[in-house]
Amino acid sequence: MELKEIGNTIDALDSLQTGALYQSDFLLTWDKAEDEIRAVLAVAEILQIMRACSISPRIFDSGLAVAIFRDKSTRTRFSFQSAANLLGLAAQDLDETKSQIAHGETVRETANMISFLTEIIGIRDDMYLGYGHTYMREVSESVREGHRNGVLPQIPTLVNLQCDIDHPTQSLSDLLHLASYFGSLEALKGKKIAMTWAYSPSYGKPLSVPQGVIGLMSRFGMEVTLAYPEGYTLIPEVEDLAGKNSEACGGDFHRTHSMAEAFADADIVYPKSWAPYEVMQRRTELLKTGDTRKLDELEKECLELNKRFIDWECGEELMRKTKDALYLHCLPADISGVNCEHGEVAASVFERFRLATYREASFKPYIIAAMMFLSKIEKPGKVLSELLQRKSARVH
Amino acid sequence: MELKEIGNTIDALDSLQTGALYQSDFLLTWDKAEDEIRAVLAVAEILQIMRACSISPRIFDSGLAVAIFRDKSTRTRFSFQSAANLLGLAAQDLDETKSQIAHGETVRETANMISFLTEIIGIRDDMYLGYGHTYMREVSESVREGHRNGVLPQIPTLVNLQCDIDHPTQSLSDLLHLASYFGSLEALKGKKIAMTWAYSPSYGKPLSVPQGVIGLMSRFGMEVTLAYPEGYTLIPEVEDLAGKNSEACGGDFHRTHSMAEAFADADIVYPKSWAPYEVMQRRTELLKTGDTRKLDELEKECLELNKRFIDWECGEELMRKTKDALYLHCLPADISGVNCEHGEVAASVFERFRLATYREASFKPYIIAAMMFLSKIEKPGKVLSELLQRKSARVH
Amino acid sequence: MELKEIGNTIDALDSLQTGALYQSDFLLTWDKAEDEIRAVLAVAEILQIMRACSISPRIFDSGLAVAIFRDKSTRTRFSFQSAANLLGLAAQDLDETKSQIAHGETVRETANMISFLTEIIGIRDDMYLGYGHTYMREVSESVREGHRNGVLPQIPTLVNLQCDIDHPTQSLSDLLHLASYFGSLEALKGKKIAMTWAYSPSYGKPLSVPQGVIGLMSRFGMEVTLAYPEGYTLIPEVEDLAGKNSEACGGDFHRTHSMAEAFADADIVYPKSWAPYEVMQRRTELLKTGDTRKLDELEKECLELNKRFIDWECGEELMRKTKDALYLHCLPADISGVNCEHGEVAASVFERFRLATYREASFKPYIIAAMMFLSKIEKPGKVLSELLQRKSARVH
Repeated sequence: MELKEIGNTIDALDSLQTGALYQSDFLLTWDKAEDEIRAVLAVAEILQIMRACSISPRIFDSGLAVAIFRDKSTRTRFSFQSAANLLGLAAQDLDETKSQIAHGETVRETANMISFLTEIIGIRDDMYLGYGHTYMREVSESVREGHRNGVLPQIPTLVNLQCDIDHPTQSLSDLLHLASYFGSLEALKGKKIAMTWAYSPSYGKPLSVPQGVIGLMSRFGMEVTLAYPEGYTLIPEVEDLAGKNSEACGGDFHRTHSMAEAFADADIVYPKSWAPYEVMQRRTELLKTGDTRKLDELEKECLELNKRFIDWECGEELMRKTKDALYLHCLPADISGVNCEHGEVAASVFERFRLATYREASFKPYIIAAMMFLSKIEKPGKVLSELLQRKSARVH
Repeated sequence: MELKEIGNTIDALDSLQTGALYQSDFLLTWDKAEDEIRAVLAVAEILQIMRACSISPRIFDSGLAVAIFRDKSTRTRFSFQSAANLLGLAAQDLDETKSQIAHGETVRETANMISFLTEIIGIRDDMYLGYGHTYMREVSESVREGHRNGVLPQIPTLVNLQCDIDHPTQSLSDLLHLASYFGSLEALKGKKIAMTWAYSPSYGKPLSVPQGVIGLMSRFGMEVTLAYPEGYTLIPEVEDLAGKNSEACGGDFHRTHSMAEAFADADIVYPKSWAPYEVMQRRTELLKTGDTRKLDELEKECLELNKRFIDWECGEELMRKTKDALYLHCLPADISGVNCEHGEVAASVFERFRLATYREASFKPYIIAAMMFLSKIEKPGKVLSELLQRKSARVH
Repeated sequence: MELKEIGNTIDALDSLQTGALYQSDFLLTWDKAEDEIRAVLAVAEILQIMRACSISPRIFDSGLAVAIFRDKSTRTRFSFQSAANLLGLAAQDLDETKSQIAHGETVRETANMISFLTEIIGIRDDMYLGYGHTYMREVSESVREGHRNGVLPQIPTLVNLQCDIDHPTQSLSDLLHLASYFGSLEALKGKKIAMTWAYSPSYGKPLSVPQGVIGLMSRFGMEVTLAYPEGYTLIPEVEDLAGKNSEACGGDFHRTHSMAEAFADADIVYPKSWAPYEVMQRRTELLKTGDTRKLDELEKECLELNKRFIDWECGEELMRKTKDALYLHCLPADISGVNCEHGEVAASVFERFRLATYREASFKPYIIAAMMFLSKIEKPGKVLSELLQRKSARVH
C-alpha cells in the first residue's frame, strides 16, 4: 500500500462496525466479528504506511504498556515494545521474580497495582492448558472492577500475546502477510492452506499457533487442511470451531493423518510442531500435584512418541506436491542440520523462504499497535485522518 | 477534586513556603516543614486531576529517572515508573547484578556514572537497620559533589522509595487517602488512628511503614495510638519523635500493649506486622560478621516469638470496638485463610476494605510525581498554571 | 564551549566530509576518516551545550535503541540509555536469557526480529578474542539484508559499545576529555601519552581499551608510548596500526617494557590492566573445546604471572617523573588499599584525579548520541541549526 491509498483504506475502515472493540480486550480472534478482524488489519496497514512515510501516529503523551511474559519471547516482546512506543506509551515489563505474584487474591491485587497509569496490558501465558486464558480473564475482570470502584482512572485493555488457546497477534500477522502476498483478503478465497504437525526434537510446544491459524483462516473462505499423526489432536473445541467457521464462510475444513495429503496442491503450508492435547492435559494434572518424577517420565514418553514421526519434515519432495506453495512459520523453526539434527523443515526449503518468514513476522508490531489503537480510540477513522493532517514527523 | 477547583488549590500552593524543596531530596517526612508536606499533597492532587482530564503535566522533553531496588517491589516500582513517565522522564532500573556496585569508593563512583543525564534517583533499601538511609545520604552527597565539580550538568534529586527508617511515599499516600476519605486534612484533627502490630507467619518485615505512619500522622492533630506486644518496639528515636510532634501540633501520641485498647473508638486502624527493633539490630550485627548459622537461629527464634501473639489479628470483633473505622494497609496483607493460615487480618474484614486499600495505593504515583515536580520546579504554582493553559492533551 | 560558540562549531562541522557516516555503523575508529572522527567530537560538543542550555536535540518522535550487553556494564549502559533518550528513542535491552539466541542461523534471525522499528543497535561483546567484532559484523549484515528484502523499513545502525578489538565510545570520550582539558584537539600535538599496563589481581581484562587508545591517539600528532611487561602484547595488527598512524600524522609511536620510561615527561598517563594477547588466544581455544579444567589452570597461571609485575602500579614516585601529567582511566580502577590490596593505582594518586576521571566518563553519553545522530541524519549541520532555531525546551 502507498500513502495515496490510505484515504481508501480509511473509508473502508469507516464502513466497518468497530464500536465493540473500543475499551475491549483482544483475547481470541473468534470472539471478534469479521468487521472487527478487518478493522485490525486495516489499521495495521495504515500505521505501517504512516511510519514508512515518517508521519507519526503517536496518540499518547504518556501512559504505560505493561508486558507480562510467563514464557520466553524475542519477537513478540520487541513487537509489543515497538507498538507501544509507536503510539507514545512506555513499555514496562512486570518481572514476576522481582515482585510478589501468586494465585487467588493477589492476581486481582497485582493487576490493579501495575495499572494506575497503564493503558495496555500484554500477557504471554502459553505453557499450561487451562491456565493462560483463564489468567487473562482474571486480570481483565480485576482491572475492570478497579475502574468501576475508583481505583483506576482508565480501563487498561488486554492484548493476548499468546495463551493456551489462541495466539491472535501471530495468526493476524500471518493473515496480513497472506493478504499482502496474494494481493488482498479476497484473493485468499479458495486457496488451500495446510496447517500440519511437523517433527521436532523438543517437548511441550504449545498448541496455540495451530489453533490460532485454523480458527482464523477458516473464516476467509480458504480450504483449511489440518494434518497430524494420530493422537496429536488440538483442543477438540477449537477443531470443531474451525469446521463451523468454514461452513459459515463458504470454505472447507478437512482433517487428515497424512502430511503428503495436506501438502497436495496446497497454496500455503504451515508445518509446525506441537505436543498432543492429551499429553498436555496429563502434564497439567501432574503439575497440579507437583509430581516431578512423573513429569520427567511424561517428557521422555512424549519425546519417544515424537520419534516415530521423524519423517514429518517439510522437505523438497513434499514441497513439489504443492502449487508452488508459500511456506509459513511463526519462528524460530527447527531446521534439519542447522539448529537440530532432524527438525520441522529441510534447510534448503527454509533458506528459500527465510526472508519471507521474516516479512511474515514484520507485521506483528503493527497488528499489536492496531489492537491497542482500536481499544483506545472510539472513532479510529476520524483520528487517523487527523493524524495524517497533523503530519507530525516521526524523524526530524 | 474537580478541574474547576484546581485554581483554588494552586492559590493555596502559592501561599505555602516551598522554596526549600527545590533541588532537594525527599528522604524523611520529618525533615520537611508542614508547608512542604502540604505542597506535596496539593501538587499530587493537581496532577491527578489534570491526568483525569487528559491535560498533560509533562515538563521534561528528555531525562532519566533511575530506580535502585534492593528489595522486591511491585506497587512502588510501577508507581515510580508511572510518575516518571507522566512528567516526561524515562524510567531506568539499575540492576546491581548486571553492574558492579560495592561499598566505599564505588558508591560515589556509581552514583555519578548513572547520573550524567539523570533528573531523579529513586531508591528502596529497607532490609537492614542502619543501612538504607545511610546509603541514600551517600548517593546524594556523591552526585552533589559531582555537580559541584563539573561532572553532572544537573543535580539528580533523590526520592526515598523506602529505607530502614521511613517510607514517605507510602505514608503520604496514606495521608492523602485519609484526607480524601474524611474530606480534608483539617477533618483529620481529633481522629483516632491505631497503628498496631499484627501477627504474620513471615520474618523480618521492615519497621519503616509503622515508623513512617506515626512520624507523619502525629503532625496533623490526630490521636495516634501505637500498639505492639512487649518487645516489639520501633526505633526509639522515631517513637520519641511522634510524641514530640503530637505535643507540638495539639494531637496525642499514646503507646499500649493491647490491640483492643488501640482499636477502641478508633476512626482509622492500620494493623501491620513488623520485626522487633531489637531482633533487627541483632540481625544487622550477624550480617556484618556473616554468621549464617546464627542468622538462621535468630529467624527461628523470632518466628517462635511471633507465634505467642497469633491472636493479634484484625478480626470482626475488634472492628466492632471501633467507630466504624477505616482499615488501612500498605499491601500486600497477610490475610487469614487466603494467603496464609493465620495472618494480620481476617478475610471478611479485608474483603470489605479490599477496594479501599487499592484506592489508598492509587495515590502513590501522584505523590511520587509531586516529589519529583517540587524538587525540579522552582515556582510550582506558576508552572502548573502554565501547563493548564497549554492544555496539551495526554491522549489524542 | 558556550552557546554563542555553537555557530562556529556548526560551520566547522559543515566543512568536514561526513557523508560516509550516514547509514553507517560505528565499529572501529580506524575505519573512520579523520574528518569523520572530528565530526563525532563536534556533534558531541554541540549536543552537550544544547542540553546544558535546555535546548532539546530530540530528532525522533518514536523508535527503539536496542542494547545487547554480553558483559557487565554500568557507565556504558546508562550512557547508551541517556543518548537514546536525549534523541527521542526508547532504549530496550535484549536480555539473551529471556530469549533464544544461538549461533549460525539465529543471529541473522534475531537481528531482524528485534529491529522492525529499531533505529540503533548497541552491542558490548568484549570477552573473547575473535568473537565480538565478528558478531557485530554478522548482526550488521543481517539487518542490511533484512532492509534490502523488505523486512525492515529502516537500517538499524550499530554502535560498538566495546568489542574484542576496539572500544570507540571510550577512546573518543577520552579524546574529547583531552581536547577539553588541553584546550583543543590541536593542542594535543606533541603531547606525550603513556598507555601502560598496570597490575591487577583480576584475570582476563579485555584488550580493547588500550587498543582503542593507541589506535585513536596516534592519529592526532601525539607521542604515544605503549608500555607493558614482556609477553603482555596487544593484538599485533593493532600495535602495527598505531605505528603507521603516527607516521602518517607526524606523531610518534614507541614501545617499552618499562613503566618508568613511559611515565618520563608524559603529559598524560593511562595505567590500566589487561590480559596478555597470547593468554587470551589460548583461552579462546579452550572455550571452543569447553575444557573447564584447563581454563581454570590458565586462569591460575595468568594470575601467578601477573604477580611478578605487582610493582607496575601508578604511584606517586612515578607521577613525579611526568610533566604534571593528567591521569586517565576508563573506570572502575583497581585502587591499592581501597578495593584491592595491590592494584593499578595508588589511592592518593587516584583520589587526586577521581573527579577528573568522572568528567572523562561524562563525555560518553554525548559521544554515543553523536554517533547515533550522524548515522541517522544526512545533513547534520543543517539539522542542528534547525534544532537551535526550534529551541524546544528540554525542561519546562
